[in-house]
Amino acid sequence: MKVNEHFQNLGQSYLFTRINQLVAAYQKEHPDAQLLRMGIGDVTQPLVPAVVEAIHRAAEEMGHAETFHGYGPEQGYPFLREAIARYYAAKGVEVSPAEIFVSDGAKNDLGNLLDIFAGDNVVAVPDPVYPAYVDTNVMDGRPIRYLNGTPDNQFLPGPPDFHADLIYLCSPNNPTGAAYDREQLAAWVEYALAHQSLILYDAAYEGFLEGSDLPSTIFQIPGARRCAIEVCSLSKTAGFTGMRCGYTTIPLELEYQGASLHKLWGRRQATKHNGVSFVVQRAAEAVFSPEGMAQTRQALGVYRQNARLMADTLRELGIAFWGGIHSPYLWMRCPGFDSSWDYFSYLLENAHIIGTPGEGFGSMGEGFFRLSAFGTPESTRQAMEQFRRLHAKN
Amino acid sequence: MKVNEHFQNLGQSYLFTRINQLVAAYQKEHPDAQLLRMGIGDVTQPLVPAVVEAIHRAAEEMGHAETFHGYGPEQGYPFLREAIARYYAAKGVEVSPAEIFVSDGAKNDLGNLLDIFAGDNVVAVPDPVYPAYVDTNVMDGRPIRYLNGTPDNQFLPGPPDFHADLIYLCSPNNPTGAAYDREQLAAWVEYALAHQSLILYDAAYEGFLEGSDLPSTIFQIPGARRCAIEVCSLSKTAGFTGMRCGYTTIPLELEYQGASLHKLWGRRQATKHNGVSFVVQRAAEAVFSPEGMAQTRQALGVYRQNARLMADTLRELGIAFWGGIHSPYLWMRCPGFDSSWDYFSYLLENAHIIGTPGEGFGSMGEGFFRLSAFGTPESTRQAMEQFRRLHAKN
Repeated sequence: MKVNEHFQNLGQSYLFTRINQLVAAYQKEHPDAQLLRMGIGDVTQPLVPAVVEAIHRAAEEMGHAETFHGYGPEQGYPFLREAIARYYAAKGVEVSPAEIFVSDGAKNDLGNLLDIFAGDNVVAVPDPVYPAYVDTNVMDGRPIRYLNGTPDNQFLPGPPDFHADLIYLCSPNNPTGAAYDREQLAAWVEYALAHQSLILYDAAYEGFLEGSDLPSTIFQIPGARRCAIEVCSLSKTAGFTGMRCGYTTIPLELEYQGASLHKLWGRRQATKHNGVSFVVQRAAEAVFSPEGMAQTRQALGVYRQNARLMADTLRELGIAFWGGIHSPYLWMRCPGFDSSWDYFSYLLENAHIIGTPGEGFGSMGEGFFRLSAFGTPESTRQAMEQFRRLHAKN
Repeated sequence: MKVNEHFQNLGQSYLFTRINQLVAAYQKEHPDAQLLRMGIGDVTQPLVPAVVEAIHRAAEEMGHAETFHGYGPEQGYPFLREAIARYYAAKGVEVSPAEIFVSDGAKNDLGNLLDIFAGDNVVAVPDPVYPAYVDTNVMDGRPIRYLNGTPDNQFLPGPPDFHADLIYLCSPNNPTGAAYDREQLAAWVEYALAHQSLILYDAAYEGFLEGSDLPSTIFQIPGARRCAIEVCSLSKTAGFTGMRCGYTTIPLELEYQGASLHKLWGRRQATKHNGVSFVVQRAAEAVFSPEGMAQTRQALGVYRQNARLMADTLRELGIAFWGGIHSPYLWMRCPGFDSSWDYFSYLLENAHIIGTPGEGFGSMGEGFFRLSAFGTPESTRQAMEQFRRLHAKN
């Protein structure tokens, strides 16, 4: 039996696995150190009351024969897909419930979607960016080209001068916090239509765009229905990192080589997936209720407030940074360090703050560092105090 | 952008999707017909009280900041992996929690595991068998050879006279209900070790073996830790079809071409998966508690009782069948029909019973038919009455 040889070309371990190991090793040596986690983009606010209530109700449904639910539709229950379609409608975008696939989370779908694409497609990936885009394609052996994000383009690379088949866009971007405006996205749609490329649009952080006039779904851009799949998540907007629920939208008319991507993905999911847990889907439904929306908006406000405090601190210290406005991430220059992994260790050892080295998001990320605003207000305040103490000294 | 061309080689739709469509069409034309579902292997007994309680408790944990859980370990929480290891220990098998990967269900893992194997491995698949084994490999373009199951070998094919890299075994078998004994499994392990093959052992129905002396895990067979991965499910044994939870066991010493399959799968999961919902893992933990085990055993008893009634009915009518003892499935000859799809329509139209055509499980299944014992006692009784009326007439 032969193993998939492409796995040899992967880094030793997935970025966040590596960070967890480094942190665990440090904690073991310093058991009393109170570490302040601003690394992995995990949320800290609990599920909102409307969602908790929905889980209780679902438990009772599952506990009684008359209301018990066994296998559900692979694509997700209509009650949830209809709620998501209404969420799109509120953004002025018409998406049919039939075009929505409920998922166990954006990460799962971003990886699994590759099953329906040929192995020799050329993939364009922003650099820096969420590392799973690269790793999942390396596993299949697809050639990867990078779209460089730099301070000059505000970490928002535009269409390249080469041909790409699959294009990843993440807006608001992880890790830089930068978000495309309509004009910039329209240029990408124009490129994709001209090149018969497919845009894989990761909108996991779209909830942070509320109140801005930046596009929060690529389907707000004319023509996108003919060249884009959108992958969304409840992880950050509704604190679902531990609940596991997202959704992927594939327009019915999206076709390549005469094949409907909607049908291909439906066939893939019917064969390798059995739908998302009923209890989780009921919880997700509650997120989209008027009550749930109001409550989650309030929870998001906590992270926005954290981001403001972090931005103020960095500004005060004269450290260059991006993001932090319509995004839970701040992307900063490593102050006084060339290597972002060295800075990671420095910050861990001297301020007990865990961040994410920019290099982990691609070679263009070297020299930069990501801080997350998903902590509690208390830990964020503590972290910024330590941060100020550390960098004011220098 | 080029799509995965192997998808062209798939059947029009996944077996159970096709059946659902046929049934929906019939129901639309006959809205008053009370259909009796013995087709798809879905359970009907509600979640047991211990599991419902666990979901309620998990909802509260998630609703309070002090006990909230965000991202969990990709491999599953230790509390659940340790419970599963104890379940193995009760079978006299030593499996470390580190070897257990909690999953969203056996179907997901059976499909996703293929990511870590090369595309040109020769795959051996029993025929008839659960159709996802074939479809998932067709998607990757792997060559497939069949292991014929017939009444002569009691639908339990032994090792073939050709080389196979990946071997699927499903015991108790879906759809035939046949289960391998120790000697037969030992022959498979011997073959796999000699050929450096990997056995993918689907133990989704192992719960039905309780009280028999047949092996309920392949790790009861000496040598299996060097040639087998076991995929398990809570779907049937604990009514989790709608909850979505299973587990996959990969021994730490399992190596091919010097590569640890445990590490490859860990890398795959860390990159394309973010763990199973915390609420679902708490529910699964409750299944393995003494209380949960006693309660689920009782629920399984209902299905066993159904199977007995079905077996008695078929015996009385003189229809040849297999399974139904240590399995929730009865595998019968289509009485008076050569085509199992014709018999499917005949049974639907004349007795309002939905079963599964044997041909859907492979060409060797043609002329046979699968009935599931997962209905309610009431619907099973009704179905058997209709069945008796229909076939006694002939």
